[in-house]
Amino acid sequence: MATLTHPTSKTHLFTKLSLKPKKFSSPSRIRMALQENAPSLAVVGVTGAVGQEFLSVLSDRDFPYRSIKMLASKRSAGKQLTFQDRNYTIEELTEDSFDGVDIALFSAGGSISKHFGPVAVEKGSVVVDNSSAFRMEEGIPLVIPEVNPEAMEGIKVGTGKGALIANPNCSTIICLMAATPLHKHAKVIRMVVSTYQAASGAGAAAMEELELQTREVLEGKPPTCNIFKQQYAFNLFSHNAPILSNGYNEEEMKLVKETRKIWNDMNVKVTATCIRVPVMRAHAESVNLQFEKPIDEYTAKDILKSAPGVVVIDDRASNHFPTPLEVSNKDDVAVGRIRRDVSQDGYKGLDIFVCGDQIRKGAALNAIQIAEMLL
Amino acid sequence: MATLTHPTSKTHLFTKLSLKPKKFSSPSRIRMALQENAPSLAVVGVTGAVGQEFLSVLSDRDFPYRSIKMLASKRSAGKQLTFQDRNYTIEELTEDSFDGVDIALFSAGGSISKHFGPVAVEKGSVVVDNSSAFRMEEGIPLVIPEVNPEAMEGIKVGTGKGALIANPNCSTIICLMAATPLHKHAKVIRMVVSTYQAASGAGAAAMEELELQTREVLEGKPPTCNIFKQQYAFNLFSHNAPILSNGYNEEEMKLVKETRKIWNDMNVKVTATCIRVPVMRAHAESVNLQFEKPIDEYTAKDILKSAPGVVVIDDRASNHFPTPLEVSNKDDVAVGRIRRDVSQDGYKGLDIFVCGDQIRKGAALNAIQIAEMLL
Repeated sequence: MATLTHPTSKTHLFTKLSLKPKKFSSPSRIRMALQENAPSLAVVGVTGAVGQEFLSVLSDRDFPYRSIKMLASKRSAGKQLTFQDRNYTIEELTEDSFDGVDIALFSAGGSISKHFGPVAVEKGSVVVDNSSAFRMEEGIPLVIPEVNPEAMEGIKVGTGKGALIANPNCSTIICLMAATPLHKHAKVIRMVVSTYQAASGAGAAAMEELELQTREVLEGKPPTCNIFKQQYAFNLFSHNAPILSNGYNEEEMKLVKETRKIWNDMNVKVTATCIRVPVMRAHAESVNLQFEKPIDEYTAKDILKSAPGVVVIDDRASNHFPTPLEVSNKDDVAVGRIRRDVSQDGYKGLDIFVCGDQIRKGAALNAIQIAEMLL
Repeated sequence: MATLTHPTSKTHLFTKLSLKPKKFSSPSRIRMALQENAPSLAVVGVTGAVGQEFLSVLSDRDFPYRSIKMLASKRSAGKQLTFQDRNYTIEELTEDSFDGVDIALFSAGGSISKHFGPVAVEKGSVVVDNSSAFRMEEGIPLVIPEVNPEAMEGIKVGTGKGALIANPNCSTIICLMAATPLHKHAKVIRMVVSTYQAASGAGAAAMEELELQTREVLEGKPPTCNIFKQQYAFNLFSHNAPILSNGYNEEEMKLVKETRKIWNDMNVKVTATCIRVPVMRAHAESVNLQFEKPIDEYTAKDILKSAPGVVVIDDRASNHFPTPLEVSNKDDVAVGRIRRDVSQDGYKGLDIFVCGDQIRKGAALNAIQIAEMLL
């Protein structure tokens, strides 16, 4: 994200084939968005990949607001930013940033959320936090609007009573968008997930490093390794999240634990292997499902076709299935390769392949859908 | 593979970081290789990615031969080729190509193997075939030397009695190199595989297209799609093999069926999802294993450390695990992320991550190891 005025310019390069050019708000849409009785917003971490996407999604969805604060670290404070044809000055995030803020969208990393999340709640803001800081905390809703909206019942804006809602990890959101409709029909008892994760999950700088490294490798130069400690271009590697004592990395255990919390089912068994692949901004996941009740692939396909936020791309004849490029900058999670698992008896197993935009539904869009439910 | 004199030049660009420069045969090593009482060889499909790797591996391993025929299609016939400091003229593959040939290494596609394999056997040659033409045929050994050498017992060269031995599919070889030592200890009853497959599996032209597309996309141009019908650069997609009536593609069913034949176990349950990723020449596989008997991760690691042709890269502290780049142009299959599967009770499940050079152990090296066992 080199420029702040065009959030996705950097990624257009890699997604233009699958993209209709991004619509920017027409004056009429701005009038719709700017409303006196609408909530006041704050975007925390506005210069980051997800922060920039917050703005893009707010604009695309005509999210109504009466004011919006652009918050970031001291380093970015004072910089100018254009949003919906208005200029904003980025302010430094401080304890006073949340006075009069109804909804605060956080995506500035776990430590910032840990410190400033409760500060904002104290000031009466409803915080939608994209970090992992509070996801597993007892009593804090972990929400995918299409999956478990009931988890945030009773939370309202403008009551002066603050609250915190956690946005799940991108891999969990993308996986459960496809798995949940099937789970509701036949009850998933075990899930084996292998991910193909894009650079965007590590932020804008990682996306830039992948592009830089690729240019370097094509020129026969050694690749610059600042964000990742090894070559990423034309390579892949086990996810860079810290490894836990059980040998899983944190990214994998998020899929295990967040699935249980979101499905409110402590017995569902999940294992995951998370791999970083040289793709720009959309994740893919190979998901093997074991069910309690029988479900055939035709029923599964029908269920997924009518699931909100899901699009089925499963054309066997032309070998057309979901790809990261096709879902980049798109809202829907795409699912395909829907087939009966030949390694399971009867009709209690399915294999599916899922792709979703990591920055959009995997982060910014999901958070803003949560905010929409507050209105 | 632009030039024929330097088999791996094209891929050095992408693998140089992990490579010590390739040693070429010293005069003394040539003397070792060229022996009057050694077998006469033929390489069928010598201009292809695997054909070129046949030569590289023969040279690296000082494979003894008294003569070697370089065979290809009419298109390449007459071209010059340098091998071990000698010049050869590529000959067109015909019915007469196999007179006096002891060992014929085939990698020219299934239809060529189907037609010329039996012709060579008729002439008394032992054919090691890298295509899928004969793999599942009753009575034809499907061999990974480290796994099931017994399958080719009784086959000898120079007896005038021809025979055909099939080389398994690359994904199967790489997966079973790691899974078999564990299978022999605790018996695998079910395996869930997700692959991350390199361009090389689709041949030299696919590797060139990935490089070309990447340059084009970086320049903002639409990518050239000749080998694959969609953008490959900074993207991934379901394997391009034909889709079967059960919804699996042929690549996936090779893993299912070849595993049963190689392990001589018709009851082992396997499912696979095969994905093509923008990596040049080494495959990765995420493998979830269910065992009949208990096996803990420490025992598994010890077993794999002492397994022939396997190297364990499993450094949790520094987050160092196998990558395609690290195994490119290497003989050993690397395995890491060895951990107890938290989704299975007791100690009857493991997750592992495997990487292997698709052209080398996945094809050429395995075939030449088979040929070595014939001597």
